[in-house]
Amino acid sequence: MKITKINHIGIAVTSIDEALKIYTDVLGLKVQSMEVVPEQKVRTAIIPVGESKIELLESTDPEGTIAKFIEKQGEGIHHMALEVDDVQAALGVLTGKGMALIDQKPRKGVENTQIAFLHPKGTRRVLLELVES
Amino acid sequence: MKITKINHIGIAVTSIDEALKIYTDVLGLKVQSMEVVPEQKVRTAIIPVGESKIELLESTDPEGTIAKFIEKQGEGIHHMALEVDDVQAALGVLTGKGMALIDQKPRKGVENTQIAFLHPKGTRRVLLELVES
Repeated sequence: MKITKINHIGIAVTSIDEALKIYTDVLGLKVQSMEVVPEQKVRTAIIPVGESKIELLESTDPEGTIAKFIEKQGEGIHHMALEVDDVQAALGVLTGKGMALIDQKPRKGVENTQIAFLHPKGTRRVLLELVES
Repeated sequence: MKITKINHIGIAVTSIDEALKIYTDVLGLKVQSMEVVPEQKVRTAIIPVGESKIELLESTDPEGTIAKFIEKQGEGIHHMALEVDDVQAALGVLTGKGMALIDQKPRKGVENTQIAFLHPKGTRRVLLELVES
């Protein structure tokens, strides 16, 4: 398993429109795209920063993961996504090393990526996502 | 103010030695350096990932910022650091835009960088650091 870069940092927000004022108006970054991911019950704004991205995440459903996260601990950094060349293979390696997974197999992420989340109980409470572009 | 990349992601841990098992043994990343930053009351491990780094932060003092963070909400992602060419100039721009700052002027970070933290009350609870390499 080879990790090549930080693909993105996911940030949970109650309102993408409000959050964008910080990232664009104040910090001067640009939005690359906006996308709704029904499977994840989120609306996202993708903001490139060097080779990485900031991914703002707004829940589209009060029962969604992001809504629950904000309800529990407020807005803030939600996860870190690491890019790998092959998510399926990486999950095999991690399982072999005894890591707990949220996703046993890759699923579809934004921008046609394949993604999988590791369980934070094995990563000292850091929610890690693997991304294959 | 031009943000060029994510300089690093800071992760608060109770034990760098324990956390490194995840990042090196499991994920296959390599430690570039370890450093104590007395001004910040932390011991750090720097782990390069592409053009960015993961910075593990272990408190050297029960009264330090990282110790307080962990006491309040447990281990996890602590901050996101964005690289700029001139921290001093960036702070001037941000102040002009009404942003609250933790550091009114740049101070010394790891690896001889100049850094400054913005106040999370202005960034929807994301602790943002600016770094000039």
